[in-house]
Amino acid sequence: MTGQNGGVPTQVLIVLNQPSSDAPPHSSMAAPFAFFDPAAPLLTALDLGATRGDGIFETISVGNGRPQALEHHLRRFIHSAAALELPTPDVDAWRSAILAAVGELEPADESSVKTVLTRGVEGDGRPTGWVFATHSPDYSRVRVEGLRVVTLDRGYRHDVERTSPWLLAGAKTLSYAINRSVLREAARRGADDVIFVSSDGFVLEGPSSSVVYRVGNRMLTPGTGLGILDGTTQASIFRYAESVGFETGFEQLSPEKLRLADAAWLVSSVRLAAPVRELDGATFRVDRELSASINAHLQSLRD
Amino acid sequence: MTGQNGGVPTQVLIVLNQPSSDAPPHSSMAAPFAFFDPAAPLLTALDLGATRGDGIFETISVGNGRPQALEHHLRRFIHSAAALELPTPDVDAWRSAILAAVGELEPADESSVKTVLTRGVEGDGRPTGWVFATHSPDYSRVRVEGLRVVTLDRGYRHDVERTSPWLLAGAKTLSYAINRSVLREAARRGADDVIFVSSDGFVLEGPSSSVVYRVGNRMLTPGTGLGILDGTTQASIFRYAESVGFETGFEQLSPEKLRLADAAWLVSSVRLAAPVRELDGATFRVDRELSASINAHLQSLRD
Repeated sequence: MTGQNGGVPTQVLIVLNQPSSDAPPHSSMAAPFAFFDPAAPLLTALDLGATRGDGIFETISVGNGRPQALEHHLRRFIHSAAALELPTPDVDAWRSAILAAVGELEPADESSVKTVLTRGVEGDGRPTGWVFATHSPDYSRVRVEGLRVVTLDRGYRHDVERTSPWLLAGAKTLSYAINRSVLREAARRGADDVIFVSSDGFVLEGPSSSVVYRVGNRMLTPGTGLGILDGTTQASIFRYAESVGFETGFEQLSPEKLRLADAAWLVSSVRLAAPVRELDGATFRVDRELSASINAHLQSLRD
Repeated sequence: MTGQNGGVPTQVLIVLNQPSSDAPPHSSMAAPFAFFDPAAPLLTALDLGATRGDGIFETISVGNGRPQALEHHLRRFIHSAAALELPTPDVDAWRSAILAAVGELEPADESSVKTVLTRGVEGDGRPTGWVFATHSPDYSRVRVEGLRVVTLDRGYRHDVERTSPWLLAGAKTLSYAINRSVLREAARRGADDVIFVSSDGFVLEGPSSSVVYRVGNRMLTPGTGLGILDGTTQASIFRYAESVGFETGFEQLSPEKLRLADAAWLVSSVRLAAPVRELDGATFRVDRELSASINAHLQSLRD
């Protein structure tokens, strides 16, 4: 625990003793987890998380001590583990560790907690699992003013999840070098974020967000089975949109069709709904009123 | 250092103080590197190598204390760093650390040394760099008897390196979850290894090897510019093949055309030339004599 502030930490790290009940524990101690100093070394140079990006993660927002959409995140964590054939996460152990980390953290308006599961050291058979809780950056401005976004080719056809499951499309893995690289390409183009497009021309998702857009009275998101993540924030927004009278739906669409939408957002657990204000260099319509009500709703979920 | 054997270690880990002269050192000590216990934790839970697969690596074979094709590997390491916009590796610092690790290692017929450079902790500006030397597994049998190989879709067109450089094709990154996943798919199909094929039907490379094949008096490998690694072992084999009278060349080819080759190998730094003995379930011609002479040559390079 670091960032001490009157004795209460602003970062909390917890390591699980047995991240999966399918694999042996790390120690014979009875404690299911232990607190660690986030600034201290945790992983050996042989951990496959560090040498092969061979692991999975989730990032969960926390408001007033309550993780948001926790069960949805845990289900997705298990889905990602299955895609990588990792030992199945013990959800009770992870939930306890998440709540313990959040409970230890200095209260803040917005925090987040990250769960990471790696395959551990090759041949050892024991995965490595940790939970890291921290205060979130202040995203209040981008939620109002929006993002300049560019579309970039992801290289894959829209149907690789079905044709080529070994490509792990739709799993949230630690192999995110490309998800970082595209942000540098966006910056070179004078933009803040990215929407991936399939090689055959369908809108997919952002590198760490889902795409949600409004057409008249409909709130939409790219269809399922496109090798994209099952968006936890997108799901919360759809439930909210339905409660205030929108129709919701999934559809496959081209970037050209997205440009005709009445508004669009990149939505994610911690930044929440960030309106697109520029798309590939052209001004894009920002729906300030709907942005504000969506974000107010997402924040209220965590109260 | 672990695996002590009469006081001489069978694994050696060295951490660089300043992996790039473009970035600040980790400590003010004058020593350019330090030995670490490979079994002890090295990386924090915030290192982007561990959380985003955001880094690069090389694996270099070592025979009788001499790293093989070292300068080629270092050039490729620098190429990968540039693709990821990492601080440029200081080749002199890396070369010194590599030689120090190898010098400390218990002598063995075959060893290897791995170099890893990560982006370090976000916002810290100091990349993390280490060198890990270890004895190699015994690959003598697979070099003679060969591998059962399946072709698998990599999902990308053959030309993504040119059209979509942000996909990092041709860089050796730590984001290797897919390179591991395809080996599990191979095992499900009763095979040992994989040859990636582009979404538009061109033979590419293995998940940790290059493809080399013989057609009559010609030794060939898939063409450049296909988003594949510049193979260090493939280059050594071509120089050898030319010295014994083969023509060598690059060509784009389909899996169907590869099936007509007189012999084929997956070639890599540590396993060397492993003949393909089965391709997608069909028996494949093994050229035992040429396999033996190629591998004898590659091993002699390290004498």
